[in-house]
Amino acid sequence: MTLDAVLNRIDTTLPEALDRLLDLLRIPSISTDPAYAAECARAADWLVAELNSLGFQASVRPTPGHPMVVARHEAPGKHILFYGHYDVQPVDPLTLWDRDPFDPEVQDTAKGRVIRGRGSSDDKGQLMTFIEACRAHKDVHGTLPGNITIFLEGEEESGSPSLVPFMQQNADELSADIALICDTGLFADTQPAIVTMLRGLLGEEMTITAANKDLHSGMFGGIAVNPIRVLTRILANMHDDQGRITIPGFYDDVDELADPVRAQWQDLAFDHARFLGDVGLNTPAGEVGRTPLEMIWSRPTAEVNGIWGGYIGDGFKTVLPSQAHAKVSFRLVSRQDPHKLRTAFHDWVKAQLPPDCSVDFHDHGASPAGMMTITDPAFEAARAALSEEWQRPAAFVGCGGSIPIAGYFKSVLGMDAMLIGFGRDDDQIHSPNEKYDLECFHKGTRSWARILDRIVG
Amino acid sequence: MTLDAVLNRIDTTLPEALDRLLDLLRIPSISTDPAYAAECARAADWLVAELNSLGFQASVRPTPGHPMVVARHEAPGKHILFYGHYDVQPVDPLTLWDRDPFDPEVQDTAKGRVIRGRGSSDDKGQLMTFIEACRAHKDVHGTLPGNITIFLEGEEESGSPSLVPFMQQNADELSADIALICDTGLFADTQPAIVTMLRGLLGEEMTITAANKDLHSGMFGGIAVNPIRVLTRILANMHDDQGRITIPGFYDDVDELADPVRAQWQDLAFDHARFLGDVGLNTPAGEVGRTPLEMIWSRPTAEVNGIWGGYIGDGFKTVLPSQAHAKVSFRLVSRQDPHKLRTAFHDWVKAQLPPDCSVDFHDHGASPAGMMTITDPAFEAARAALSEEWQRPAAFVGCGGSIPIAGYFKSVLGMDAMLIGFGRDDDQIHSPNEKYDLECFHKGTRSWARILDRIVG
Repeated sequence: MTLDAVLNRIDTTLPEALDRLLDLLRIPSISTDPAYAAECARAADWLVAELNSLGFQASVRPTPGHPMVVARHEAPGKHILFYGHYDVQPVDPLTLWDRDPFDPEVQDTAKGRVIRGRGSSDDKGQLMTFIEACRAHKDVHGTLPGNITIFLEGEEESGSPSLVPFMQQNADELSADIALICDTGLFADTQPAIVTMLRGLLGEEMTITAANKDLHSGMFGGIAVNPIRVLTRILANMHDDQGRITIPGFYDDVDELADPVRAQWQDLAFDHARFLGDVGLNTPAGEVGRTPLEMIWSRPTAEVNGIWGGYIGDGFKTVLPSQAHAKVSFRLVSRQDPHKLRTAFHDWVKAQLPPDCSVDFHDHGASPAGMMTITDPAFEAARAALSEEWQRPAAFVGCGGSIPIAGYFKSVLGMDAMLIGFGRDDDQIHSPNEKYDLECFHKGTRSWARILDRIVG
Repeated sequence: MTLDAVLNRIDTTLPEALDRLLDLLRIPSISTDPAYAAECARAADWLVAELNSLGFQASVRPTPGHPMVVARHEAPGKHILFYGHYDVQPVDPLTLWDRDPFDPEVQDTAKGRVIRGRGSSDDKGQLMTFIEACRAHKDVHGTLPGNITIFLEGEEESGSPSLVPFMQQNADELSADIALICDTGLFADTQPAIVTMLRGLLGEEMTITAANKDLHSGMFGGIAVNPIRVLTRILANMHDDQGRITIPGFYDDVDELADPVRAQWQDLAFDHARFLGDVGLNTPAGEVGRTPLEMIWSRPTAEVNGIWGGYIGDGFKTVLPSQAHAKVSFRLVSRQDPHKLRTAFHDWVKAQLPPDCSVDFHDHGASPAGMMTITDPAFEAARAALSEEWQRPAAFVGCGGSIPIAGYFKSVLGMDAMLIGFGRDDDQIHSPNEKYDLECFHKGTRSWARILDRIVG
């Protein structure tokens, strides 16, 4: 009955747990913008203080970028490593937020109570479910729940440049029997899920330069090459009319889904009409002939995430700019090699440059897709624990997002990872008015208590 | 010998004329940016004070936008109206300026002395050549040189929204026998020129909207339509591989050059290699099969002057934006009707929208091309005066830029215009480090003294 006592403790101390989360959400730890470096450090310090107060041996660990947080509790038994990230996405456009993104609050909504603020779901609210589960166990038992390392990153939203070097330099300390990663969601909002398939990510920035200065389109229009026109033509060529990416060799290492996986996904009854309808869309816009779940879980993509050039202020300026820019990302699957594809992309762009134009590239990170091997009994134990808490069978699913850490745990530290999270599709992560349902925070914490009870206890 | 006395006066008072111009250049009268509205008003006030001190009846004339300046000197003889504009282009990117754009100075360069600063050439330096010619005449003769109205606009760089209504409301006051417009350049830097053919301009802004908020490309990438991709595809379709514009009906009202005009332009020996080489380019990038002068003077264009969407700050954000934007302009020729083409452009864009996407347009002005009738003896008189001053035969030429005022003088006030200016191709108008050669300012002033002597005196 000790598990029941821990669950009960989670229920009765929920208000205090919420207060702690709100404190953390008030820290604007935007990792991609150098202006917020001190705030990232402040979030790391806050977590170290919290973890030390729970009995972990926690410390801030400097990197060339934002610091890591590592917390250790040695105990007998299976050693698990928990991963989360304390950094958050930028908040622009700020005008679309209903309140200050870093002045969080719990709000009553038609769909229940929500925790509103940047990072509430991605990933501060999620990482705190694990810490609060540890706290409840400590409160009940006087000791932390087992042989645990907590490893929190501050650069997940900005390409994780320091992650692999840090893991390599601290491999002994970070190697455990299995990793737990809390940065994913429920399936279709109500069904618990363990992600076993993740897309990789390749980030690129390109600048096309033509003339050596901005030109007047009255004087030069018609005779001078316009780099915006060159850029739009190249980007428009990136997909054919079937929605397939045209970069040579792009699909060479993309596997078709195995039949059993395809069958399992069909059973999931994904409601793509609702998924798209929630954001004002109707029509799946991916490759012709693919199911919606394939489009977001098992097929690669090429997207322009940002584009700019010329005059973009109020009014009008008849300028032919000297440069045009785009940020492009590729979601990768199966055995696609990001470094090989980066080269293929560069070559493909260069081959399309007209006379007088040059291109510069800037690397914004690369990680391969991740495929978990689910033979470790911990996977079945976690599935049972989740099914119990949520009263619905937990599913093994894919994830369209890139959580490179899962791949690195395997490639650098040689361990498998279980990706378990409690976000919902309408959490508006990376968007204005991000929220985390109070139910998800509460039952998420209870879920970890159940999982720890089964796999560590 | 009275003309010689005026020319001599211009020579000996050049330092004081320069000081006055520098005063005017110090006023940051950027018309397209509402933040500079008070500075535009200040420039208008400065000019009114200057013109009144010369004996004109000058006043600031309010409009819904920036004010007009109208100055009148009644006298017997042919009534001429002089036009210039006191507003200037924005200065971004500021980092590419070697000095504060609004802290002008006269600099010694390898190519001679230049007046450096925003507006030095376009158009404050040019309009002051006429005012200084009037001043020298007054100094010598004690009276202004004839029956003259000076009409100065403050919205030329932002689409001239108030111009036509103002001309309509003040048609009696502004109607003269002929207009003089000083907003153009020398041909090939050394040959005086009168522009008789001007391209029109159609300005459009478009916003494509897809989802009702920004999306995470991990969650939605592959299934949700990306408005940047839609925008780039539409813009890339705007030209075929021969460089021709694909909007249906676009070329319907475009005339081929008359043979005599084509022959005259061939005689001009335009050095396109130098023209492009000065800005770091080599290859004429317009329609296949057209000469460089056709590309910039007599053929229409479609250009993207600005594009933006998604995350464009430092770092990277894996966002699928809800909107993407572009500012597009068309240079028009012959009988092309801007309003008909605006509708054609809208229809053509809408026809390419995929499901779930909508488009909004914002009108940034429209003016047809201008074709002068050069039978008025003033044209030959001005040509003779210019040839005398510059010791090279003045040419009748085209102009790639849009000077809508020329068309409005004809359509609203029923008078022809002579476009005479002294800018050089390397003046960097609309770009960082704009300059006006001291020689152009000086000989430009002398040119107006000669022209006034022939056509007004």
